[in-house]
Amino acid sequence: MKFEKPVPVQWIADFIGAELIGNKEQEATGINEIHKVTAGDISFVDFEKYYSASINSAATIIIINKKIDCPDGKTLLVITDPFSAYVKIVNHFRPFEPATKLISDSAVIGKGTHIQPGVFVGNHVTIGENCLIHPNVTIYDHCVIGNNVIIHAGCVLGADAFYFKRRREREVQYDKLVSCGRVIVEDDVEIGAGSTIDKGVSGDTIIGKGTKLDNHIHIGHGAVIGKNCLFAAQVGIGGKAIIEDEVILWGQVGVSKDLTIGKGAIVLAQSGVPASLEGGKTYFGSPVGEAKPKMRELAWIKRIPEIWEMVNKNKKD
Amino acid sequence: MKFEKPVPVQWIADFIGAELIGNKEQEATGINEIHKVTAGDISFVDFEKYYSASINSAATIIIINKKIDCPDGKTLLVITDPFSAYVKIVNHFRPFEPATKLISDSAVIGKGTHIQPGVFVGNHVTIGENCLIHPNVTIYDHCVIGNNVIIHAGCVLGADAFYFKRRREREVQYDKLVSCGRVIVEDDVEIGAGSTIDKGVSGDTIIGKGTKLDNHIHIGHGAVIGKNCLFAAQVGIGGKAIIEDEVILWGQVGVSKDLTIGKGAIVLAQSGVPASLEGGKTYFGSPVGEAKPKMRELAWIKRIPEIWEMVNKNKKD
Amino acid sequence: MKFEKPVPVQWIADFIGAELIGNKEQEATGINEIHKVTAGDISFVDFEKYYSASINSAATIIIINKKIDCPDGKTLLVITDPFSAYVKIVNHFRPFEPATKLISDSAVIGKGTHIQPGVFVGNHVTIGENCLIHPNVTIYDHCVIGNNVIIHAGCVLGADAFYFKRRREREVQYDKLVSCGRVIVEDDVEIGAGSTIDKGVSGDTIIGKGTKLDNHIHIGHGAVIGKNCLFAAQVGIGGKAIIEDEVILWGQVGVSKDLTIGKGAIVLAQSGVPASLEGGKTYFGSPVGEAKPKMRELAWIKRIPEIWEMVNKNKKD
Repeated sequence: MKFEKPVPVQWIADFIGAELIGNKEQEATGINEIHKVTAGDISFVDFEKYYSASINSAATIIIINKKIDCPDGKTLLVITDPFSAYVKIVNHFRPFEPATKLISDSAVIGKGTHIQPGVFVGNHVTIGENCLIHPNVTIYDHCVIGNNVIIHAGCVLGADAFYFKRRREREVQYDKLVSCGRVIVEDDVEIGAGSTIDKGVSGDTIIGKGTKLDNHIHIGHGAVIGKNCLFAAQVGIGGKAIIEDEVILWGQVGVSKDLTIGKGAIVLAQSGVPASLEGGKTYFGSPVGEAKPKMRELAWIKRIPEIWEMVNKNKKD
Repeated sequence: MKFEKPVPVQWIADFIGAELIGNKEQEATGINEIHKVTAGDISFVDFEKYYSASINSAATIIIINKKIDCPDGKTLLVITDPFSAYVKIVNHFRPFEPATKLISDSAVIGKGTHIQPGVFVGNHVTIGENCLIHPNVTIYDHCVIGNNVIIHAGCVLGADAFYFKRRREREVQYDKLVSCGRVIVEDDVEIGAGSTIDKGVSGDTIIGKGTKLDNHIHIGHGAVIGKNCLFAAQVGIGGKAIIEDEVILWGQVGVSKDLTIGKGAIVLAQSGVPASLEGGKTYFGSPVGEAKPKMRELAWIKRIPEIWEMVNKNKKD
Repeated sequence: MKFEKPVPVQWIADFIGAELIGNKEQEATGINEIHKVTAGDISFVDFEKYYSASINSAATIIIINKKIDCPDGKTLLVITDPFSAYVKIVNHFRPFEPATKLISDSAVIGKGTHIQPGVFVGNHVTIGENCLIHPNVTIYDHCVIGNNVIIHAGCVLGADAFYFKRRREREVQYDKLVSCGRVIVEDDVEIGAGSTIDKGVSGDTIIGKGTKLDNHIHIGHGAVIGKNCLFAAQVGIGGKAIIEDEVILWGQVGVSKDLTIGKGAIVLAQSGVPASLEGGKTYFGSPVGEAKPKMRELAWIKRIPEIWEMVNKNKKD
């Protein structure tokens, strides 16, 4: 997330109550998770093993829970609980704005777009031209919808990322990382009834141009879906997964988070994808493998009793 | 879909810009996909290998992308892109009618039926007597609901078929087959919260009398579900599947398109059904097999290390 | 379900048309399924094999389809169809109350709670303080929501239990057990978009304090979910399952009804849980087993061709 205007780093330090080390004249231009940071961003780190990756990332300002040497030109904000400080900044710059009616006054809706009854369009939402939004859809604040998009009834775009920090010592153990990313739906996308697309934690969840989603599909926070993909019903995609162009996922496929499925891959129904897949191939199984060897495995399983018999016969000879 | 009144075939030819071959005096009474056509229907074909099946089907008028001999009494409409011509006709005779309020004036709602707040009832919808439609349900145009039907909150009936023609040469590759079928829910059906039932491409998606669906169920376009079926939560049924009477599907079962599950079959939880199943039996697995042999397979898998040991022992002897 | 005030058993007998045996002075204080009964409750039994369990349960009044000896101090209500009699009582004491607006006048909503547009809050619902209910959520009558709860768009809380008695001799075979339990969501719970939580048949479905549910989750009737659990998207939990504290279920896991998953268990994605699991372990597979042996099984399957070759070689030697 980028701020509307640059914020002096000293103001941030005072706001969260952190000790400021390094460049005191910095201006923060946004706030992001480590994998999304660009120059000017605030990020945070609270595990020693990620210190190095974090302070050497593109982030300009790092909220950290230990006083360490600050690289030239960067700023460290030292505080006991960087996670909570990050959440405090997000809540300040992207506060929840309660809605009082179904279509927000701050939403921008393009020419030729028709919005059916019962649709919620949140604050600062942009919808392009010639779209059709069917009844009882919910579009949370800050979503961006392109042109010629069809969204079927009951869909939810922009719900919060499912992202928590566990604190085993507390009574309520899961601490919510308040998300400030957006959902971006590009032109010519169609989204089936009852599907949900979560916003990114700090970056954007993207549905690429011309992609078609069937019903009951779940797209996790920050996932990036390519162009001209086809997902059948009840597919689930984990957070920050990257699905390249022209990927076809059949019904009930589950895809784990933080992986890449290469261009043109086809994953057969009910398969489970725990790790990255090369493009251009067909896959099957849970966990998934290439479809042909997987099918042969199934045939081999049926032959175990035959092998058993042979082994016993060999024994007797 | 049947037209409200017969349409001269010459009018159709002019409307889509096709060359008319064969019977010029024909009247079209409807438009349908090849597997649903009856006499009087317009259908289309754009693959040479389906030409013969198409012109020998019950369809009276065939939109086709090659000039071939026309059987007696039929009419061919020759045009470069039959798919787009078919879509143009559907859009003309079944245009999208934007709604301005939650319950359409053209909907017919029976005596004793109660519709809770937030429900959308589209144009030309019929709902029978003594039904209970819970909040935030969406019923698209032209759906037909019987008597004593209960539809739980958040359900979506009549969303578009998930059916596209791929045109790899275009930037936006998936071309939507606009659907004009209906959803028909027979008497005494109950549909669980958040379920979705898509309309047929040209025919009807049917939920048979007395069938009970749990939550998050997806029924694809043109599927025909028999009477007294029981589907547990998160089941998905592909397009045009035929599920005969008294079939029981447990949770998260996935059923592929274009197949038949015979009367009284039971499919255990999380199974995947890629092809037709005989009735009266119990099935399990992904892909599915009869349950007992499948369970034995699982037991055999656990014995592979034992077989391995025996084989190695045989070797040493 | 407990009645608002005690009801004389003779009134119940007259209301359902049953013969009263045993203690005629009893007062009924509630009505419950056999696994939920406490003293004062009416319960029912219609299978001979459950007679003994039923009349020896904590229930004070048993509706039964055979005249048998009544234990001291209890009351039997003898009638041909106990199931229908039970349903008649439920419908009388917990009648459906049609809503006329989105937020019921009888709902109690705590300080600092914000309800977004399009939300349905039924009769006698209680929502605590500082909650955020996103658009198009449906909360059926009698649900109880704690403090600091976030419910994302499109969720459905309190839909009917999916519970039917099959009567094969009838045209409409499935007879609905009208449910009168509630959904109770404890403090600090977050529920993802499009999730559904059914009410209990007679007891309560409970989501424990601090538990976080992702999108498209189904929680069946009467399930009891512990504290600080984490369920990823598209998980399904069967009726009356007990999930103890701090259980983690990854995406698309299916859990059968009437079982217990022990504290701190982790179930990997797409697994199917048909029976109870001990706490503190990690599980995988459909049907599920401990993860490490299951992974070894998968490795062994890949070695079957190698075993086959060795067996054939042994044979030739």
